[in-house]
Amino acid sequence: MTMREEAEEMIRRAIRDVQPDEAVNAALRNLELPEGRVVAVAFGKAAWQMAKAASDALGDKLEEGIVITKYGHSRGEIPGFQIFEAGHPVPDGNSFQATARAVELTESLTAQDLVLLLISGGGSALFELPLCSEEDLRDVTKQLLACGASIGEINMIRKRLSRVKGGRFARMCLPARVFAVVLSDVLGDRLDMIASGPAWGDPTTCAMCRQIVEKYGLEISEDVRRLLDAETPKRCENVTARVTGSVRELCASLERSCREFGYEPRLLTASLDCEAKEAGAFLAAIARDHQEEGKSVAYIAGGETVVRLTGKGLGGRNQELALAAAAGIGGLRDTAVFSVGSDGTDGPTDAAGGYVDENTAMRLEEQGISIARLLRENDSYHGLEQCEGLIRTGPTGTNVNDAACLLIRRK
Amino acid sequence: MTMREEAEEMIRRAIRDVQPDEAVNAALRNLELPEGRVVAVAFGKAAWQMAKAASDALGDKLEEGIVITKYGHSRGEIPGFQIFEAGHPVPDGNSFQATARAVELTESLTAQDLVLLLISGGGSALFELPLCSEEDLRDVTKQLLACGASIGEINMIRKRLSRVKGGRFARMCLPARVFAVVLSDVLGDRLDMIASGPAWGDPTTCAMCRQIVEKYGLEISEDVRRLLDAETPKRCENVTARVTGSVRELCASLERSCREFGYEPRLLTASLDCEAKEAGAFLAAIARDHQEEGKSVAYIAGGETVVRLTGKGLGGRNQELALAAAAGIGGLRDTAVFSVGSDGTDGPTDAAGGYVDENTAMRLEEQGISIARLLRENDSYHGLEQCEGLIRTGPTGTNVNDAACLLIRRK
Repeated sequence: MTMREEAEEMIRRAIRDVQPDEAVNAALRNLELPEGRVVAVAFGKAAWQMAKAASDALGDKLEEGIVITKYGHSRGEIPGFQIFEAGHPVPDGNSFQATARAVELTESLTAQDLVLLLISGGGSALFELPLCSEEDLRDVTKQLLACGASIGEINMIRKRLSRVKGGRFARMCLPARVFAVVLSDVLGDRLDMIASGPAWGDPTTCAMCRQIVEKYGLEISEDVRRLLDAETPKRCENVTARVTGSVRELCASLERSCREFGYEPRLLTASLDCEAKEAGAFLAAIARDHQEEGKSVAYIAGGETVVRLTGKGLGGRNQELALAAAAGIGGLRDTAVFSVGSDGTDGPTDAAGGYVDENTAMRLEEQGISIARLLRENDSYHGLEQCEGLIRTGPTGTNVNDAACLLIRRK
Repeated sequence: MTMREEAEEMIRRAIRDVQPDEAVNAALRNLELPEGRVVAVAFGKAAWQMAKAASDALGDKLEEGIVITKYGHSRGEIPGFQIFEAGHPVPDGNSFQATARAVELTESLTAQDLVLLLISGGGSALFELPLCSEEDLRDVTKQLLACGASIGEINMIRKRLSRVKGGRFARMCLPARVFAVVLSDVLGDRLDMIASGPAWGDPTTCAMCRQIVEKYGLEISEDVRRLLDAETPKRCENVTARVTGSVRELCASLERSCREFGYEPRLLTASLDCEAKEAGAFLAAIARDHQEEGKSVAYIAGGETVVRLTGKGLGGRNQELALAAAAGIGGLRDTAVFSVGSDGTDGPTDAAGGYVDENTAMRLEEQGISIARLLRENDSYHGLEQCEGLIRTGPTGTNVNDAACLLIRRK
């Protein structure tokens, strides 16, 4: 197997391991089923797949459920489930109606029952039932967006205007237990942030909200002011959560593959957030100083890098990371860097990422192609295209950020 | 000891370990002295200290020597040594006279003799004896600088116009052996590049020089053309080299200190060359994902990062790296990042670098200071000043690039 073939296989497995159904299966494997009833509430872009996997895994034991997903994202009936499609990223009447149905579902539960909560990206808009009027909600959201408030600040306010966010949904499920499976695309997996944390204690306070209102001079109705003064639950003791399908699992899958292919895997991070091409340069610098270690090693860095736009070319953050690394590993021995987006779509291209090795820079140079210029033009796609450096997976149906990997092969 | 105190001690030791005298001592410890004579030729900004250390270490065995250093850089007599001060960065008559004296010194040597070659930064200008007229040399250099030739291209040409560069000095020393101690500030330690490689085989060729002349349309005299057609030595088999005091030793010293203080050291690279603040973000990302490893670990990255200028503040690459890391490690537990320049002068400031920990971001925020703004303004100095984050060592008398270190302390 060539290193390129190894990389392709590692990527294939990693993407399989973070698929919603695979992730749900893995999470449910350790679930202790209750004596009472099991009901499911699934929301987010992958809600349908997660619900389907849960239904297949639990069979009749899963009595009843709700799916709330984005328009066009459901794929048919699931036994016992009511399936809703609703607005995203802006919630609409369907979101509210479906969420109200989910609230109803939890009303008659006992301490012997279990709510299976299946959460995926986009959940914040899809799972929503406001405590204020829709007009107030729209108005506050608009003001927050206009004044440049951070996403953390926006969520802090919105949690308090919602019947289900900021731990409130878990509170409603009481006395039943909640088992939450979270398919996370949020860096760092802060549960109180994902989908505005319907089942997690809210670390933010009313005092913080008042500061935001003051800081940005928000004009709010009496109704909203009253809601901002109602505290959210600080702990949700009936909830057990399993975060899965996250970038961490993407990295963990790469670690397993690397080990299997004879590399000693070294996970650097699953929360990389620096500039794509600088991350590539950093990995290349690591490559240069581990040439003589005498064994095959792999450095893995997951996360979501950013591209600084300085040109008008075609590319994506994974392709840019790989191409930048190519410049720094040129002339080394049996050394490769790949970077891939788990959704299969890196930037506005048909590639999922890039693969480069110690010969890439020379191959481009021979064609009169300058890596520095490609990077300046953000044109990584056209460079990698010229040296068989594009990784193509097609759309994968999941999105848990990216992973980059440096491979150094020694016999 | 606090983590800050540990960091200060690690830095103190690392800078001591790369001092010219300490580096020469370490290199000479393994030197097998010859039956015949030992003579020394020392050139570069640290030539005097290196010669003094060699003289102290070898005593009477070191018969005779030459020091060629920058004006104002010698500090008194050394037994048996002739001491020259000369022009830098532009060579002058003193450079040529002193270098001619060094050539003379090697003329009568036998196969039983040894030339101790002590090389430090700035050697390219200080150790020079042109084969062409001074006028020709000046003219070609001027054209090369004006046309935007790379430093590699400039050196390729200059080697061929020199009696001592590109392996030619080692050739002259034959049949004697040469033991070279190189105090390196060049990333990657390519010996043929340091001081234009007086004792290393030259990988460049006459054909490459002709291409440069053509590429930039250089106008050269007949004399110069003839010299560019004379090939340089490709191998110098009478030379043994010990590169020391390099950034690699700086990192190795940090590794030793980390181990002693109970951290498991992990050397990432000694050739980091990406953007300073992105390197800081990368180290912070590593920090976030090694909080739960359950032991004290240290990640070390040496090299020379670059600062992208977007503002007009005060700072340096080490301070910028540290400040950028502060943003990413805020709120973690017993985690610190420091970065320091071995010369003790980071950018145009009186600080050597920066130290930040998990509380730095909060301390700055409490003072209303935005890290993002400081980074945009390249104003790391004023930020670190407000949170006791500046590392001050004073000028250290050496320069082997920088080292950054991430510390995670667990009991």
